[in-house]
Amino acid sequence: MPDLHAARRDALRALVRQAGADALLVTDLLNIRYLTGFTGSNAALLLHADGEPKTLFCTDGRYVTQAAAEVPDLEHVIDRDSAAALVKRGSGRTGFESQHVSVEQYEALTSVSAEVDLVRAPGLVERLRLVKDEHEIEAVRRACAAADAALAELLERGGIRPGRTEREVARDLENLMLDHGSSAPSFDSIVATGVNSAIPHHRPTDAVLRQGDFLKLDFGATVDGYHSDMTRTLVLGKAADWQRELYELVRQAQEAGRKAVLPGARTVDVDRAARAVIEDAGHGEEFSHGLGHGVGLEIHEAPSLAKKGDGTLSVGMTVTVEPGVYLAGRGGVRIEDTLVVRDEAPELLTLSSKELVVV
Amino acid sequence: MPDLHAARRDALRALVRQAGADALLVTDLLNIRYLTGFTGSNAALLLHADGEPKTLFCTDGRYVTQAAAEVPDLEHVIDRDSAAALVKRGSGRTGFESQHVSVEQYEALTSVSAEVDLVRAPGLVERLRLVKDEHEIEAVRRACAAADAALAELLERGGIRPGRTEREVARDLENLMLDHGSSAPSFDSIVATGVNSAIPHHRPTDAVLRQGDFLKLDFGATVDGYHSDMTRTLVLGKAADWQRELYELVRQAQEAGRKAVLPGARTVDVDRAARAVIEDAGHGEEFSHGLGHGVGLEIHEAPSLAKKGDGTLSVGMTVTVEPGVYLAGRGGVRIEDTLVVRDEAPELLTLSSKELVVV
Repeated sequence: MPDLHAARRDALRALVRQAGADALLVTDLLNIRYLTGFTGSNAALLLHADGEPKTLFCTDGRYVTQAAAEVPDLEHVIDRDSAAALVKRGSGRTGFESQHVSVEQYEALTSVSAEVDLVRAPGLVERLRLVKDEHEIEAVRRACAAADAALAELLERGGIRPGRTEREVARDLENLMLDHGSSAPSFDSIVATGVNSAIPHHRPTDAVLRQGDFLKLDFGATVDGYHSDMTRTLVLGKAADWQRELYELVRQAQEAGRKAVLPGARTVDVDRAARAVIEDAGHGEEFSHGLGHGVGLEIHEAPSLAKKGDGTLSVGMTVTVEPGVYLAGRGGVRIEDTLVVRDEAPELLTLSSKELVVV
Repeated sequence: MPDLHAARRDALRALVRQAGADALLVTDLLNIRYLTGFTGSNAALLLHADGEPKTLFCTDGRYVTQAAAEVPDLEHVIDRDSAAALVKRGSGRTGFESQHVSVEQYEALTSVSAEVDLVRAPGLVERLRLVKDEHEIEAVRRACAAADAALAELLERGGIRPGRTEREVARDLENLMLDHGSSAPSFDSIVATGVNSAIPHHRPTDAVLRQGDFLKLDFGATVDGYHSDMTRTLVLGKAADWQRELYELVRQAQEAGRKAVLPGARTVDVDRAARAVIEDAGHGEEFSHGLGHGVGLEIHEAPSLAKKGDGTLSVGMTVTVEPGVYLAGRGGVRIEDTLVVRDEAPELLTLSSKELVVV
């Protein structure tokens, strides 16, 4: 999609000029992928504010063929030390990604060329990446669909039942996501049964699923580099009253959070909408994390939906809404969706049921 | 193993004093794991040159329980902004990991405390990590054993045969490694059949294995955070003469490289020992990468065994030896082992056969 990448580079040029720079040295590989389509492990891009003819892409000898296919629309330099090779060819006031470049890299780059004045320019590409275009949203949608299909198939084939271990369930989910088009899990899957469900970021163990347990599943797929993120909490066998009540509370909080996902909403207000439901029920202390986060080329990216922060939502942002209440020593519930901010109401991408599923 | 971690911190203190600093702020998570055993995703360590009582460990609220279990022998601070929280409590000349800390992070940290003078101190922990202790070697050995066992089982059950795809074989290898004690693949597995085997870092596709094809498998396991790395090249059905010749050439080069892995050997000379065999056969241009690399908490770490570099091997380093010859449009062979540098001869950790396996 060279046109798409060229359009993104054009949008970035406007930010580079706003920042008072002649060029931007892009060294973060995800940002390079976003701007060029290149998926290799070594690259740099020198985006010139004047336009494409002066913009240079660099990778090393291993990727000559791949780069020709993935980045057909830019001039290529082949050099193992990709950032330095481009600085050598640059001139003028050149922004660099100071939130990614280490102090040592920066020191090395400053001595490369007397023609180049390196200036801090953090987060310019990330600012563009905040709002997804429809190509990106489609990739997140497919990743969410792979996770939905994996969970449905696992439930259908009886893969969630007493006697199995957290680790077995995690592995099945990950393999099923691969069957349904995922290239890799989008993060280390969380499968937490019984009292483990009260640990927000529990890692799967050999703990055995038992009748009456909560089972918390937090997992995601990757499609074309884009991630999905979903949490569902189930009960094995008959749900006890306290489990139904806790589940219903989190379900209501999550619904309130989703309804607050609207263009122009402040991120703190979205967090508040869900958190208020939980606080009113006296469980504020047991909701110990933020409400959600952006999802895209990274599994966690801006915006953060939390108690603090000064962000505002815009149409096209993809975010999670994931309140949880964790009762130490008993069990916890988290319900999480991935959503797209749309004009009237958010578009839901994770479609698995949010009714309390009893298996 | 608190004793082990305390001994590593003691060794680091000597380097900190040599660097003329009062303390070292460690922010790289692998370095923190090496020095403390902590495996969470947010932490910082302020190692004081004066000793353990002044040394502080910081993580955030999610990890209070885990940190208490994993790091019982240091004073803990709980703060989400872990590096800043420790700088706030520091004083004097304080080294920081300038090869990991970004320019923006550095700028933010400099304003935290007037008592602290932050100075660049790159690579101190990495210098210690170069030489593995027997606990580390045992973890690498177990990771190598998991990969060996996975390949043996896949061959035994007939999982490598015409008609299967690269992707299927990769997935089977990864699942079998999990069965044999791996927590995760140590990198994206390479499974390359036929002409794809001529691409050094080919990613698995739906390409189908066919009679007469080379099949190149480059994969590894992870045990206790330590990695293994092994490449084997097989032939499906009867090997053609050119395949036998190419294989034998790479096998001889790999053997020459392994024999050169001795304490005191310069890394360039180890590379040369293997490369000379391939160059003498007229294939120097088709061996397009370095001979090998260190393996440990990272899949690629120091030392690099390559044409350039000024390293020297020491007893206890774990390295790969992996020459390859890639004939574009026909096929390629790479053979790779993970080895420990020992006094008389290297210890081989990847034990799968290096005879040309015909399946």
